[in-house]
Amino acid sequence: MRSNITFLLLISSLATFSQNVGKLAENYIQENGVEIISNFKELLSIPNVAFDLKNINRNAEFIKTELEKRDVEAELLRMVGTPPIVYGYLPVKNAKRTLAFYVHYDGQPVDKTKWTNDPWQPTYYSKAIFEGGEPISFPTTQGEIDLNHRIYARSAGDDKAPVTAILTALDLIKENKLKITSNLIFFFEGQEEAGSRQLQRYLEDNKELIDQIDLWMFCDGPVHQSRKPQLVFGVRGVTGMEVAVYGPNRPLHSGHYGNWAPVPGQMLSDLISSMKDEKGNVIIDGFYDDVEPLSESEKQALANVPEIDSQLKSELGVNTTEGTGSYYERLLLPTLTIRGLSSGNTGKLARNVIPATATASLGIRLVKGCDPEKQKDLIEAHITKQGYHIVREEPDQETRLKYPKIALITRGSGYPAARTSMDEPIAQEVINRTKDIVGDDLILLPTLGGSLPLYLFTDVLQKPAIIVPIANHDNNQHAADENLRIENLWYGIKLMSGLMTIQK
Amino acid sequence: MRSNITFLLLISSLATFSQNVGKLAENYIQENGVEIISNFKELLSIPNVAFDLKNINRNAEFIKTELEKRDVEAELLRMVGTPPIVYGYLPVKNAKRTLAFYVHYDGQPVDKTKWTNDPWQPTYYSKAIFEGGEPISFPTTQGEIDLNHRIYARSAGDDKAPVTAILTALDLIKENKLKITSNLIFFFEGQEEAGSRQLQRYLEDNKELIDQIDLWMFCDGPVHQSRKPQLVFGVRGVTGMEVAVYGPNRPLHSGHYGNWAPVPGQMLSDLISSMKDEKGNVIIDGFYDDVEPLSESEKQALANVPEIDSQLKSELGVNTTEGTGSYYERLLLPTLTIRGLSSGNTGKLARNVIPATATASLGIRLVKGCDPEKQKDLIEAHITKQGYHIVREEPDQETRLKYPKIALITRGSGYPAARTSMDEPIAQEVINRTKDIVGDDLILLPTLGGSLPLYLFTDVLQKPAIIVPIANHDNNQHAADENLRIENLWYGIKLMSGLMTIQK
Repeated sequence: MRSNITFLLLISSLATFSQNVGKLAENYIQENGVEIISNFKELLSIPNVAFDLKNINRNAEFIKTELEKRDVEAELLRMVGTPPIVYGYLPVKNAKRTLAFYVHYDGQPVDKTKWTNDPWQPTYYSKAIFEGGEPISFPTTQGEIDLNHRIYARSAGDDKAPVTAILTALDLIKENKLKITSNLIFFFEGQEEAGSRQLQRYLEDNKELIDQIDLWMFCDGPVHQSRKPQLVFGVRGVTGMEVAVYGPNRPLHSGHYGNWAPVPGQMLSDLISSMKDEKGNVIIDGFYDDVEPLSESEKQALANVPEIDSQLKSELGVNTTEGTGSYYERLLLPTLTIRGLSSGNTGKLARNVIPATATASLGIRLVKGCDPEKQKDLIEAHITKQGYHIVREEPDQETRLKYPKIALITRGSGYPAARTSMDEPIAQEVINRTKDIVGDDLILLPTLGGSLPLYLFTDVLQKPAIIVPIANHDNNQHAADENLRIENLWYGIKLMSGLMTIQK
Repeated sequence: MRSNITFLLLISSLATFSQNVGKLAENYIQENGVEIISNFKELLSIPNVAFDLKNINRNAEFIKTELEKRDVEAELLRMVGTPPIVYGYLPVKNAKRTLAFYVHYDGQPVDKTKWTNDPWQPTYYSKAIFEGGEPISFPTTQGEIDLNHRIYARSAGDDKAPVTAILTALDLIKENKLKITSNLIFFFEGQEEAGSRQLQRYLEDNKELIDQIDLWMFCDGPVHQSRKPQLVFGVRGVTGMEVAVYGPNRPLHSGHYGNWAPVPGQMLSDLISSMKDEKGNVIIDGFYDDVEPLSESEKQALANVPEIDSQLKSELGVNTTEGTGSYYERLLLPTLTIRGLSSGNTGKLARNVIPATATASLGIRLVKGCDPEKQKDLIEAHITKQGYHIVREEPDQETRLKYPKIALITRGSGYPAARTSMDEPIAQEVINRTKDIVGDDLILLPTLGGSLPLYLFTDVLQKPAIIVPIANHDNNQHAADENLRIENLWYGIKLMSGLMTIQK
């Protein structure tokens, strides 16, 4: 009983402090919203496609300078011909832990013809364009700011918002003389959207700078579709392969040879159809065998996630879904997706031919336990079982005449899934601290459907990693008219302030 | 016994005469080969794409003038905005029949980047390019001409060679004072490669000019792949349809939605796969029901056609074929061919998305007995049976939410097959006369695999129609580097001379 009372008192004291941080952040935003938005706009104005090294370096320098203004020891980790990592370090006396904040400052390439406005000339809207929002001036007084306002620009949602949230959190902590309780490391990557190809080498080459990190927090991705905050403990892995099947050695007249020459589009359809059952479950031998089951905590967390199937169906215009199970259950299985099909032509370009080949691009997502290479091996074994002779380059005449069915397989690269246990003590600290800020509405997801190379941290570095998203789910990431809802920027600032000042 | 002797004497006398025509034609060619090739070259130099009305009219005027030079009453039948028909008439006193020679003087559009030489600057080759032939000068002396020489130009094979063959046949008949035994009508079309859209109206509007015709001879297409001469008594009909199936209302991230959102490429593959059995036979209810069986003559003729499956397999680089049966057996069935498939992207453009749609272009060939509309109805019924709701335009949100599977079907136009009985007396006359010229090696085919709107003659005009091809099978018709083998031009001249002078 006694201990319970102590516990309750402790909770109560923490809650008060947390409410203070929340309240203080709220007040700070109330007073400085115009300037925060202006700072964000400035950051968004610097073009940030990874291969545009000149501009990507301008982003890095800008962020480094902003960190230094806030007393963070900052440097640019460089590797020739690649975007630098902005590395920042804020040591704290007697800190019991070191927290790393990962953000990426590069964005997806743009097709300007599809954007309503220039992607690097941030535009301010009364609400989302798809909701009928209109462009308005950036606010000059606090009273003008509405939580539904949106800023449209490349990387507004993915992934510059956490940069501004972190910088603002440092400002409000300083102004309110709050205590930062952990050593903080900032790790801002510049080539995430280009595939993070040098990330592993950056991590290896700068081992001494990151070795002390106890927890990596990935400030990336969107909050829940219900607009509720969420923490995510894993991602799916990703790989892929391309399969081309062969008919005649050149396109043939569909009259002269129709019914006689093998039709590659038919063969490919048969092959693809053999991979799934009627409901859409993969029936390739062993495809689901390596899936690591959920822990009790994960199962419980999942049971508390709001159902979003109905909302998604309505939003995406589908009556039914693939496979058996709810959205979140389906994310816990590896996928096999026909990303693309091509053979001959369709539409106005369709001709009366039997095409020479048909090609399918297969996307494969992996969950914890699945190996990217083994998963592709299983698919190949299935293709062989369907009677195909597998080749690695265009078949020559001898090969063509020897085998009735030939498939050219081109295996893509990829990486495995990653998942951090919610039961880890440091994970529990982050969960509790986030609940301090947002209340019990917090959603805990065992995994995202999408992929990030998180395995480099969880499996290579062997450190826990949690995804801490702040963007709205409808931020149009990777597409035209990317945007951030103002309320999500405010949420990010509060959350970052909270995580920097975890009690205990 | 007596009648038999008479018959033998008659045969012998005919054979002598026929050998005379063959010999006389041979001699004429021997003496005038250089000029014949030069005339052919001149005709091939006039660009002849149907929509290029200025040049197409130059072709028509040229042919009309050449007919008139040979005492044929010629005129251009015109319809505003379309290529004219060159109509020629050569009446013969006391003729018992009227024979019509159909040829088309227009050619397929060209992609000049794919041609070795300009398609309308005829080039002379020592043999086929694919056999290692080299360009050489056009011959200036008889001794230079070799039967394996080829002329490369658009329409060399399809379908200007019969124009030159007919004009030359008239020349040699005149020079040798041979007797033309039938009224001859020449009907040269200028928009066959553009779909013969106005052909039916031309036939209707000029009924009085064509009503007397007893037999239409279509001088088009290639001789047999074995290089043996052939007569063809039918064609398959043709139609088509496009089927688009729907996933989400926009392309989705294959990670966030993979395993949950319906994958249109998978759905389409299942649908296509359901249309044929493993061997490639169509299993759509009723698809083969209306096929009209072969007559005894047709069966016998077919039994005498040289087997070409092995040659074709080797030439086209396939180990096996679709369906059960030999090449010629397979031409006697309607087809269902996947002419094209498209969904998302493949190759370097492949992205990690679940595409919004997948589309298949279905090519359909018909044999005698099958109705183009009914055949499409059967396919639609099958698609419905697979659980699809069929729409005729892009489904709206309400439709999307209402039906689990939606297929947008766009039906193409088309026309039925046609087949003339080999047992018709006039067909027998043509068969026998052709044998006079070429010997017993003549191949008689009940039908081509390809399509021509022959039904306009056999079914609408109710007149027999026989295809009388002269081009080599490897003439690259419809493609780049179209060509004619010189031996085939000579064969055409002999055959036309023979047909114009049928005895009896």
